[in-house]
Order: sequence, then structure tokens, then C-alpha cells
Amino acid sequence: MAKVAIIGGRGKMGRMFARAFRKQGHTVLVASRSTKLTPAQAAAKGDLVIITVPIRDTVNVIKKIGKHVRKGAILTDFTSVKVRPCKAMKKYSKASVVGSHPVFGPSVGLKNQHFVLCPVRGSHAWYKQALKKMGLRVSTMTPEAHDRHMAIVQCLSHLSNFSFAHAMKQLKYNPNKEVLTSPIYRVKLGIVRRALDTDADLYTDIETENPYAKQVAKAFKKATDTLEQAIREEDKKGIKRIILQCQKHFGKLKQDMREKINRLAGFL
Amino acid sequence: MAKVAIIGGRGKMGRMFARAFRKQGHTVLVASRSTKLTPAQAAAKGDLVIITVPIRDTVNVIKKIGKHVRKGAILTDFTSVKVRPCKAMKKYSKASVVGSHPVFGPSVGLKNQHFVLCPVRGSHAWYKQALKKMGLRVSTMTPEAHDRHMAIVQCLSHLSNFSFAHAMKQLKYNPNKEVLTSPIYRVKLGIVRRALDTDADLYTDIETENPYAKQVAKAFKKATDTLEQAIREEDKKGIKRIILQCQKHFGKLKQDMREKINRLAGFL
Repeated sequence: MAKVAIIGGRGKMGRMFARAFRKQGHTVLVASRSTKLTPAQAAAKGDLVIITVPIRDTVNVIKKIGKHVRKGAILTDFTSVKVRPCKAMKKYSKASVVGSHPVFGPSVGLKNQHFVLCPVRGSHAWYKQALKKMGLRVSTMTPEAHDRHMAIVQCLSHLSNFSFAHAMKQLKYNPNKEVLTSPIYRVKLGIVRRALDTDADLYTDIETENPYAKQVAKAFKKATDTLEQAIREEDKKGIKRIILQCQKHFGKLKQDMREKINRLAGFL
Repeated sequence: MAKVAIIGGRGKMGRMFARAFRKQGHTVLVASRSTKLTPAQAAAKGDLVIITVPIRDTVNVIKKIGKHVRKGAILTDFTSVKVRPCKAMKKYSKASVVGSHPVFGPSVGLKNQHFVLCPVRGSHAWYKQALKKMGLRVSTMTPEAHDRHMAIVQCLSHLSNFSFAHAMKQLKYNPNKEVLTSPIYRVKLGIVRRALDTDADLYTDIETENPYAKQVAKAFKKATDTLEQAIREEDKKGIKRIILQCQKHFGKLKQDMREKINRLAGFL
């Protein structure tokens, strides 16, 4: 059994993974600014050192504790961007380095959720095994492939949610009026509400620290500009052309997925 | 018991309402381009005449059959925009006129769904009662208030869905790759898929025939422009300001809604 040091382990994600590692018989050391055990001490003791602090602090924490991590140990971080933290972990430590990204929040549990590993240096075999034993679906990719993909999954989603919410604000439309809404609209509004029910700093960091966020934002702006112009000019052909292009890109919806989504529509 | 004439009654919505009226003991006459009974004949016989044809054909059908509807009868349409059809029904008939909008698709059934009535002229009391007996939640508003509200519920939703999908297309991102997605992203993608799994003409019509769609599109474009610029300039303060404005506008998320949305996240 190994010693797992979790730096910043008092947050929700840190505590959830502390429980999961303990359940497998590992010893878990938790260090943060408010624990007796300092992050540097925990880093020196860990066979696996996990940094789970806000994105904007991650590179700084790596700079401080990287040199304390033993050469034979594994160093990882838990943030939603991987290019910059992986580069820093490689530079400021001599340990085995692998970036981690749990692609879910603490509210949904671990079972069947996606977890990404970005191997940078050395071996991380037992860590990967431990994650699989938790029921996680582990994928492996480069930090660049990860950030490019997440610029869609996260940045594009956030952009679309916040543009939606901000348009409502500008139009002085009250989103909490419950009259006269369609089922799928309520689901959509639920997603926007959930995006707003979170730390503004986290989303700000994801939008600014993912190196591919800019090109995603540019594409979204272009799509919006094209649609707005077509609507302004009542250009039926122009609007339809965009919808047809999207339909072609997405392909035909399969019956089982259609049924699933329809059930979803009755949910809120 | 009354005679209900459904013009265009062979579509999914038409058939669903035909069944519901028959269940209450009414006689239902269905007329379309392919029935023996012509729309004009059905219109002349109905105590309630429902026009349920595509938005772009609605005003034309009203022009043709309006004069055949008896003065004591009720004339209504079932489209998702109300200002233009209501104006036409008033102009081209002498009947009682009320606009209708079932705010849901045929896949979710009638029970507890929202249904809007826009009274224009005369009485429609028994029709409203019949709708309530079907389990529908009936609201009453002016055609203008309806279209202003629906410009948010429908047009803003569509804009956000199609901008999302079209950005993916531009970025050559394959939405059908199932690796590495978060639960709420899968729900979001499900909503986009559902929006694309429909008649492009219907959405095109809603965007062009709702007189308030233009100002909604303008607000969405403005929100997108502001966010894109902040991301491009890595302006953390600018991004956070927008998120905080949205949070303030939406208010705090209640615990029961948070739990509902979290369950939603585990759905797809």
C-alpha cells in the first residue's frame, strides 16, 4: 500500500478522492494552508502527490513543492487544463509526472465517470490501476490533445451558457418566471443555472488558461454573427442553410438517443 | 357536444388533439390537402376550427378558409408565433378568434404541459374548458406578450443551440466521439441534437416570423462579442464581471433545484 499526499485536499474533490484511496487501503496525507502538515512535508512523504488547488494557483504550488517530491514518486495535478501544469510539473520536479483531469464535479460520484491522464515522464501504472478500481473510465492523451478537446467540452459550453444568460440580462427578462416554458427549455435553463451556480473564478480560469479557448470563442462568435445577420435580414434561406450544415455535421439522431433525450425533456 | 374541424389534422400534433377531443365526446373532422373533405368544407361545419399547418402556410390558409367559418364558431391556429396569425384570423373571418400555442412537442403528451391562448375577439370559454380537461396548463396573454416571451424561450434557445453546433462544424470537431465528456455536457449536447433532429423550416419560420426575434439575436450577439473579446485578451476581470452580472440576474439557485439539475446530469 502506498502513501498518497493530497495538496489542497480539503476541497470537495480532494475529500472524495481521499476517501476512495483510503478505501483501497492506502495512507492518505492531506495538506493545505490550514493543516499542521505543510504541503512541502506532505510532498516529501508521498508515493503519489496530488495537487488539487484552483487553476490560477496550480503552477505556483508546483513551483514551491515540486523539488520536495521524491524521484521515485508520481506527481500529478487535478485541474481542468493540462498544457501549462504538465509543463511546470516536468520543469520543477524530478518525479514521474502525469497530469490528471477528473471530468466531472463532486456531486455525481466516481462510478463510470471520465478521468483523463496525460503522461509526461516515467511510470504511473499503479495510480492508473487505483483509478480504474474506483470505477472511473480512464483515458490517456497528450496535454495538447486534452486541452484542444476540453476547449470544446468546457469553453464552448460555458460560452454558450453565459451568452444565453447575459442576453436575458440585457433584455431584462426574468429567468425565474415559471409561466409558459417548454420542457426542453427548462432543461436548457437548468444547465445555465448550474453553470452560474459555481465559482466565477474557476470558469474564468478555464477560459483564460486553456490555450485553445481563443479559437473556440472565435468560431462561436462567427456562428452567432452569421445567424444574427440572417435573422435581422429575415433571410430564410440563410438561416436554413446554417441549420442544414449543422444537421449534416451531426448526422442522423439514432432512435435510442432520441428516446433518451425525450425522457430528459420531461425531467424538470 | 361540438364539431371540431382540424385543418392539417394529419400531423402529429393534429392527431394528438383529434384523439383528445374525441375522448371528450366531440366529433372531429380532419381536413388536409389529401382528404376528401376540403378545408373549406370542414371550416364551414366546425363549431371550433383549428388550423395546424406549418407557420409559413398559416396566414395563407387563414385567407382561404376564414370566410367559411361561421360567425358563432371559434377560429384558432396552433403555431408558435401569434402576432401575425391572430391579425389574419381577425381580418379574414367573422368568427370568434383566439390564437393557440401548445408549448411542447407531440412526444411528451398533453398532461401538465403549457398551452397558451391569445384571445382576439368573442368568446372561447368551452374550448378553454376542453383544453383544461385534457390536463393542459392554460395561460392567457396578448399575441404581443406571447411573441415577446417566446422570442426568449424559442429564438434565444435556438440561437444558442445552432451557434454551438455551427462552431463545432467550423472547428471540424466530431460531436459523435463519446470519449471524455462531462455529464452536463452530454445533456447539453443532447439538447443540441434534439434541436437539430427537426424540420429546419419550422425553426427558420420561428426565427423570421416572430417580430421580436431580431432584438433577441442582437442581445445574444452582443453578449458573445463581449465574451469573445475578453477571452481573446485573456482579460480575467472582464470574463468574471460578465459571469457575476449573470449570477446577480439569475439569483441564488435553490437547493431543491440544484438537486434536480444534478440528477439531470446523470441522465445521459
